[in-house]
Amino acid sequence: MTLNKILPQWLQRYQSSWLSGDLIAGAIVTVMLIPQSLAYAMLAGLPPQAGLYASILPLFAYALFGSSMTLAVGPVAVASLMTATALAPLAVAGSADYATMAVVLALLSGAMLFTFGLLRLGFVAYFLSHPVISGFISGSAVLITIGQLKYIFGIKIAAGNVIMTISAIIKGLPALNSSTTLIGLSALAFLFFARSSLAASLKKFGINARAADLATKLAPMMVVIISTAVVAIMGLDQSAAVSVVGNIPAGLPSLSLPEMQWQHVQQLWMPALLISLVGFVESVSVAQSLALKRSQRITPNKELLGIGAANLASALSGGYPVTGGFARSVVNFAAGANTPAAGIVSAILMSVVIAALTGWFYYLPHAVLAATIIVAVVGLIDLKTLKESWHYDRADAISLLMTFAGVVLFGVEEGIVLGVVLSLAVVVWRSSHPHMAVVGRVPGTEHFRNVDRFAVDLQPGLIALRVDESLYFANAQVLEDKVESLVAADPSARRFLLIMSAVNQLDTTALSMLDELEKNLAEKGIMLQFAEIKGPVLDRLRDTDLGERMKDRIFLSTHQAFLK
Amino acid sequence: MTLNKILPQWLQRYQSSWLSGDLIAGAIVTVMLIPQSLAYAMLAGLPPQAGLYASILPLFAYALFGSSMTLAVGPVAVASLMTATALAPLAVAGSADYATMAVVLALLSGAMLFTFGLLRLGFVAYFLSHPVISGFISGSAVLITIGQLKYIFGIKIAAGNVIMTISAIIKGLPALNSSTTLIGLSALAFLFFARSSLAASLKKFGINARAADLATKLAPMMVVIISTAVVAIMGLDQSAAVSVVGNIPAGLPSLSLPEMQWQHVQQLWMPALLISLVGFVESVSVAQSLALKRSQRITPNKELLGIGAANLASALSGGYPVTGGFARSVVNFAAGANTPAAGIVSAILMSVVIAALTGWFYYLPHAVLAATIIVAVVGLIDLKTLKESWHYDRADAISLLMTFAGVVLFGVEEGIVLGVVLSLAVVVWRSSHPHMAVVGRVPGTEHFRNVDRFAVDLQPGLIALRVDESLYFANAQVLEDKVESLVAADPSARRFLLIMSAVNQLDTTALSMLDELEKNLAEKGIMLQFAEIKGPVLDRLRDTDLGERMKDRIFLSTHQAFLK
Repeated sequence: MTLNKILPQWLQRYQSSWLSGDLIAGAIVTVMLIPQSLAYAMLAGLPPQAGLYASILPLFAYALFGSSMTLAVGPVAVASLMTATALAPLAVAGSADYATMAVVLALLSGAMLFTFGLLRLGFVAYFLSHPVISGFISGSAVLITIGQLKYIFGIKIAAGNVIMTISAIIKGLPALNSSTTLIGLSALAFLFFARSSLAASLKKFGINARAADLATKLAPMMVVIISTAVVAIMGLDQSAAVSVVGNIPAGLPSLSLPEMQWQHVQQLWMPALLISLVGFVESVSVAQSLALKRSQRITPNKELLGIGAANLASALSGGYPVTGGFARSVVNFAAGANTPAAGIVSAILMSVVIAALTGWFYYLPHAVLAATIIVAVVGLIDLKTLKESWHYDRADAISLLMTFAGVVLFGVEEGIVLGVVLSLAVVVWRSSHPHMAVVGRVPGTEHFRNVDRFAVDLQPGLIALRVDESLYFANAQVLEDKVESLVAADPSARRFLLIMSAVNQLDTTALSMLDELEKNLAEKGIMLQFAEIKGPVLDRLRDTDLGERMKDRIFLSTHQAFLK
Repeated sequence: MTLNKILPQWLQRYQSSWLSGDLIAGAIVTVMLIPQSLAYAMLAGLPPQAGLYASILPLFAYALFGSSMTLAVGPVAVASLMTATALAPLAVAGSADYATMAVVLALLSGAMLFTFGLLRLGFVAYFLSHPVISGFISGSAVLITIGQLKYIFGIKIAAGNVIMTISAIIKGLPALNSSTTLIGLSALAFLFFARSSLAASLKKFGINARAADLATKLAPMMVVIISTAVVAIMGLDQSAAVSVVGNIPAGLPSLSLPEMQWQHVQQLWMPALLISLVGFVESVSVAQSLALKRSQRITPNKELLGIGAANLASALSGGYPVTGGFARSVVNFAAGANTPAAGIVSAILMSVVIAALTGWFYYLPHAVLAATIIVAVVGLIDLKTLKESWHYDRADAISLLMTFAGVVLFGVEEGIVLGVVLSLAVVVWRSSHPHMAVVGRVPGTEHFRNVDRFAVDLQPGLIALRVDESLYFANAQVLEDKVESLVAADPSARRFLLIMSAVNQLDTTALSMLDELEKNLAEKGIMLQFAEIKGPVLDRLRDTDLGERMKDRIFLSTHQAFLK
């Protein structure tokens, strides 16, 4: 019983038949994770070991607290970029201060997520709409790609905004490092080929589909091995100044928390919040789409605890913000992972790597890591959502494009805040311009529709208006103006029926508008009536002056009011 | 024909019978306007002539462009306070710079309002809800009252926030100027008496109601005359150091615009925008309530032009931001004003005052002006709206209280921004937690209501859910969770009917949620159906993958779907 409470559900019910799937998936994910963890640490401006550290304890922590069976947690591209953006103005990349602040960021992020989970605040993530997330991810991918070009060409450029970076790269091209460029472009070409057509080519040669797909996923590791061997054998790091990873301190991370400084908290809480939200949304959407394929459910509030615990564990072991990654999770799922035990397998294998094998990465060229990153993030650029939303809802498409442009031109944080504000502004804007329809009865039914769209029966002396929005301060006056103009246009009107089937809220401002409207109409000899008021709205209306005056003029259905 | 286009409508149709009303009302308003314009200029931190200047040309401008027949334009308390708040951090009150910046503020404010009017953006003012306006006005009234106490007691205190001001006044009380305090408190007592019971007392003595009411409105002018005479005769400005208005430069203002500096525009655009919006909302609501009493209409976009022109005129003649004032407008209306000609009468009389009579105000004590201000603004404190909204809609009451507290504790601009953000957040918050109801048919009708509230018929195998909110990113997931849990709780379900009568918008995020939901339900052998989709929503839905798949499962009415 006590054990039941402590151990996660999947472990209590663990079946031995699940083990082989978990072992294989864990091993395959590890082979992807090694180059990615080194690459994303570089993207985050951190030493390579930070990426490795972030790939061990967090996986255990997620396995204990998370709700997805197949989510692969660890360093990811977007959170790494956000870490770099948050820390760049505060410390020099590569310095001890910088690494400490990355740990603080993971700590704050983990604490926030865990707290949100305990408070069941998972819904805050819903405020990031699909188009905003899509624009954000695409923008980040472009920003990351541009940021990695310097490694591909082996040129040094100063930090700056995207325009400055592009112009610095163009200016720097004549002085590129030719060996680095050759390695970088070859790696890029091979990885793009592997991604787009390796599996198909292998299948043509008679290799079975699963093995072919697997080979595709392992391509980055192959590139790592080949390029490292070439650089080591030819001594290119010395003879051609090819920039390489170099020494990585061996051994498992020591467990300790950084000394928290109040100043750091002040500087980092906002980036930590954004990293948390974005990481959480990314994780949940990956986890959910994978869970649905097996008719499993994931629980957003448990996911908060899981990702939160992973970040706390990352902070404890000298890592940086982590979350559930898209590509590795899909591979984990496809390779047959049954439970988070697959993640534990990966974590154990990563421990072996960091304990004993870090020397193997000495000659790994930075250009290859950059190529790995670029190929991974280019796959994240999402034109489909743009196309669909452009077709379906122009305002959503504009939110997407503005978020994208905001991220690329102003930065990741600015971009996402812009996107959220814009998408909320659209919601408010639309509700402040409500659709309203004068309705009549569809002949032979009790159903009422727009007089402009349907051939309907009307009742002499009655104007029936359906307002398609909750009534509140931003649109109360609009409704009043509409009623006044309808009444002015129809001198025969004796009754004005307001159909409230779409009115979900009625605030104080709208209430006082209706109160005045009722009086004004009465002075003109027109009786205001209501129909189809929803329960919750009616409950509150009954207790007011207006509700009292109107009590015999509130009808359950439009039909009843129509017959009256 | 040309004349028709140039002259305002009221002037084209002017009838000689209107003249006496306009003359009398104009004269009475002038008697109120003289002390108020001096007092509000003091409140704004400006020399007395700025208030007088702001009471001439703006009245002409409004008469040409405005749409209200009875709105009395000029310096008002809240705009004066906002002017002082905007300028305090930028220049020393009383300096030439300060006065110049006040003119720039009127210029920006006028330009914004006029532009909004041309672009027909009158609706932006709707984003200030009644509770936010109420909290803002009450908060401003408290802030103004506290700010005037130093004049009542004749003590000097440094500028600061409300807590600092109160403690400085308490500390300064032992050193108060006793003559000033006597004058100030007497003025206060008389004015409060005049406001609350003078009219009733006079009526008891047989004076007719109209004259009694009039006497009440003229009370401030009486206090001005008596106190000025007392100070002048007794020489209290010298012998008892009673602070008086002193020299006011005589003569009409010269017409000129200040040299605009880019820096001023940057510093002042935000306060100018807030002053514009608040002033406009105040004007429109006063104008509208007066217009309704005579079955007239005011046009918000024309009001923007009117108030905008008034502010431009104020800037041109060395004034500061003006708007339609509550108290003077009510008096203007009650005194029988028929057209803006009454305002022109006031403007002409004010010209006479400033051309020839400024010397008469030399001995007018500041304490009397402060008393005038306090009595005027205390009347603006609005507990009724608080009480009503507390009863009707707690969230509105909280917006009101937070706006009030924000204004008093942090300042007028911060307070109103807080109020607007908060009231919009409530709207978004509510729509992200939609009310949903499983419905059944009211026996013997085609009408469907909540199963928890009504005794209704159900159809075996059918779950019919009505969602009472537009579907968009912030609530799409909430609906999906609700559907999943209803389906999980009812294994007999074969059809799930989503009733969209309250769905006024359906964004991309909600669309992709519904698309996924349809697939998930189909896998479980449950058919998703829609009913009562509104025209605009259906038009867009038809063109999508989901719309295509669902096209035979979208019903006009719930009733049709129910019978199916």
